[in-house]
Amino acid sequence: MSTITCKAAVAWGAGEALVMEEVEVDPPNSMEIRIKVVCTSLCRSDVTQWESKAVAPLFPRIFGHEASGIVESIGEGVTEFKEGDHVLTVFTGECMTCKHCSSGKSNMCQILGLERRGLMHSDQKTRFSVRGKPVYHYCAVSSFSEYTVVHTGCAVKISSTVPLEKICLLSCGVAAGLGAAWKVADINKGSNVVIFGLGTVGLSVAQGAKLRGASRIIGVDTNPEKFDKGKIFGVTDYINPNDCNEPVQQVIKRITDGGADFAFECIGDTGMITTALQSCCDGWGLTVTLGVPKVNPEIAAHYAQFLSGKTLKGSLFGGWKPKSDLPLLVDMYLRKEIQVDEFISHNLPFEEINKAFNLMREGKCLRCVIHMPK
Amino acid sequence: MSTITCKAAVAWGAGEALVMEEVEVDPPNSMEIRIKVVCTSLCRSDVTQWESKAVAPLFPRIFGHEASGIVESIGEGVTEFKEGDHVLTVFTGECMTCKHCSSGKSNMCQILGLERRGLMHSDQKTRFSVRGKPVYHYCAVSSFSEYTVVHTGCAVKISSTVPLEKICLLSCGVAAGLGAAWKVADINKGSNVVIFGLGTVGLSVAQGAKLRGASRIIGVDTNPEKFDKGKIFGVTDYINPNDCNEPVQQVIKRITDGGADFAFECIGDTGMITTALQSCCDGWGLTVTLGVPKVNPEIAAHYAQFLSGKTLKGSLFGGWKPKSDLPLLVDMYLRKEIQVDEFISHNLPFEEINKAFNLMREGKCLRCVIHMPK
Repeated sequence: MSTITCKAAVAWGAGEALVMEEVEVDPPNSMEIRIKVVCTSLCRSDVTQWESKAVAPLFPRIFGHEASGIVESIGEGVTEFKEGDHVLTVFTGECMTCKHCSSGKSNMCQILGLERRGLMHSDQKTRFSVRGKPVYHYCAVSSFSEYTVVHTGCAVKISSTVPLEKICLLSCGVAAGLGAAWKVADINKGSNVVIFGLGTVGLSVAQGAKLRGASRIIGVDTNPEKFDKGKIFGVTDYINPNDCNEPVQQVIKRITDGGADFAFECIGDTGMITTALQSCCDGWGLTVTLGVPKVNPEIAAHYAQFLSGKTLKGSLFGGWKPKSDLPLLVDMYLRKEIQVDEFISHNLPFEEINKAFNLMREGKCLRCVIHMPK
Repeated sequence: MSTITCKAAVAWGAGEALVMEEVEVDPPNSMEIRIKVVCTSLCRSDVTQWESKAVAPLFPRIFGHEASGIVESIGEGVTEFKEGDHVLTVFTGECMTCKHCSSGKSNMCQILGLERRGLMHSDQKTRFSVRGKPVYHYCAVSSFSEYTVVHTGCAVKISSTVPLEKICLLSCGVAAGLGAAWKVADINKGSNVVIFGLGTVGLSVAQGAKLRGASRIIGVDTNPEKFDKGKIFGVTDYINPNDCNEPVQQVIKRITDGGADFAFECIGDTGMITTALQSCCDGWGLTVTLGVPKVNPEIAAHYAQFLSGKTLKGSLFGGWKPKSDLPLLVDMYLRKEIQVDEFISHNLPFEEINKAFNLMREGKCLRCVIHMPK
C-alpha cells in the first residue's frame, strides 16, 4: 500500500469557501481502512463546524461525515473488512469492547466516540496532507475527499446491492432522527409530538413518530415550504412562529391540552430547547435535543419546568449502536419500510460542493448528495 | 359546624419570625375536611418559601406541609373521610379524575397539583383569618396551625395504629427522596450514585439507593457531620467540596470511572444541578432534581452534557401518587422496611417553632417535629 494522491475539498478557514486541492492520503494504519468515497451528503453540522461560531476553529480540515464508499485497502489486523466491501461511514465509532460499547445501553464509545481534535486515534496524527501540511480530519470520517482513512470502528459493512448514492443519508441525519423517535424517546401510539425544525433530522423524527402511530405531529419552522415536504413524512400540523400572536409554546400547550408528550429540538438552537421544554406537558413530557448549536452552546431553563416532572434528554446519532443497529436500518430501507430517497433535494458533482454549503446555510435544501468522480 | 378559634404560627413577612396568633378557621367547604393537626415537621421548602428570595412573597401566610392529624369535621359530599380518621396531609393533591391523575404516569394533578396562590380550590378564598384579615394557605396544607382545612384530595387516611409523631415525615421529605430513587430514577443494583446535599431528602435518596443495592453511594455536603448521619442511611463515600483541590465533578468522574450512573440534586441550588449533570456518566447518566431553589431559579448547562446522552429529570414528591402510593410507604414503615424515625433530630413544642426555622436555616437539623398542644 502506498500514499494516494486525490482530490479533496479542503476548508482553510472558518466560513471560507472550500478549495479543491490535491491531497496526499496515507495508507491505513493498524485497524484502519482506506475508503474510496462514492457519495457523501452534507449535514448541517458540517456547516456549523465549518462556520465555527460556537466551537473552536480547527483548520485546515476536510469535512463530511455522511458517506458511502468502497474499501480500497485495509490496515494490519483488519479482519472485519476486505478490499471491495461496500461501507457506510460512522461518525461516532464503536470499539466493541469499552464499558459503553459493551453496556448495551450507550453508543458513547470511550475510545472512538467523538474524535474531537481532528486526529486519528492510533497515533494522534492525520492521514491527510496538502503540500506537506497536515490536514485535520472531521468526525473521524472526512468524506469530502475521493479517498479517506477511518478506524474500522467507524465504518459498517453493507450489502453491495444497496444503492450507495441514497444510503449515505443513513450515516447520520436520517438515522439520528429515527433513533431519537424510536430509541431515545420511544414514542408510543396516540402521542402528541412537536418537532422544532423541519430539516432532514426533524422530518426523520416525524417519520419515526408516524411509524409509531403518533396521533398528532406538529412541525414548527419559519419556512412554510417545509410543511409541504413535512406532510410526506407524517407532519399533521404546521406552526410558523412568525405567524403567531403569542409564544409558540403557548400555542402548542393550547392545541394539545396542556402540552405535547414529546418535543424534539432539531434546529441546533439552545434557546429553542427552552421553548421545547415549555411546550411539553407536565408529568411525563419529554424533550429530546438532537441539534448541534450554531451559536450559543448554553441551555437555560427555569427549574419549575423540571419540578413538574419533565425530562430533558440528549442524544447522539439517535442512540443507535452503529455496528448492530445501522444494518437493521439498511434492511428496513431495502424492504421500503422507511423513506430515505425522499430527503434528497439535490444531486451535485463533487466540484460543486460549495453550492451545497450555500444551499444548506440558506436553508434551501434537505440533503444534497455529492457524487464523487467515478 | 362552626368556625374554630385556635393558635397558629403566622408569617407576616419574608424572613420575619412567625407570630403565634389566635386564628379563625372556617368550617370545611364541600369536598374539604378540617383537621386537628397532631404533629408537623419542618421542611426546607417551608423556609425557602418564607424567605421568598426566589419566589414572589405572599403574606400573611401559615406555612407547614408535612403533617399528621385527626379529622375534626367533614364538608358536604365527603365520603372518603369521617370524623376521627387519622390522616397524613398531601401538598400535591390528587383529584383522581383529571388527565394526569388517571394517566398512571404522573402525579401532577391538574386540579389540585400545586396550590400556587395560597387559596382554596373551590372558591379561591382562604379558610384562615386573623382579626378579620384573610391569611393565605401554603401548599394546600398550612399545618402550622392547631386546625387546618384541606381538600379531600390533599389528605390520605392512615391506620390509627401508626405513630402520628413520626409518620408526618412521610408527608413530604422522606417520601420525596425514596420516590426519586425508586420511581423517578429506578436505581438498579450495583449502580454508582452521587447525592448533592445530605439533608432529609438527600439521605432518603441514599436509603432508597441502598435498598436497591447500589454499590456506591457518594454523599456531597459541606458539613462533615452529615457523613456520620449519612452512614446510617447507606452513604458509602463522603466528599466535602471545600476539601477538594479540583471541582467536585472531576473527583466524582475519577472515582467512578467516567461519572456516576445517577446524580441527585437535593440542595435547592440550580448551580449544583449543573455540577450534578457534569458528575454523571455519558450514555445513560441520569440527573434528578428534587430541590426547590433558594435563590436563582434558572438552570444553565452546556448542550454537550446532553449530546453525550445524559438525561435531566425533575420530580415532585418523588413521583408518588399520594392516594395509592403513600399507604404503601406507611405499610413499609410499619414493617420496618424503611427508616423514618432516624431522620428526627429535634422534637419541639408548637411554641418553639421559630427555633425549628432557625435550626433549618443554619443547617443544624434534619427534621424538627413540632408537637401541637394535645
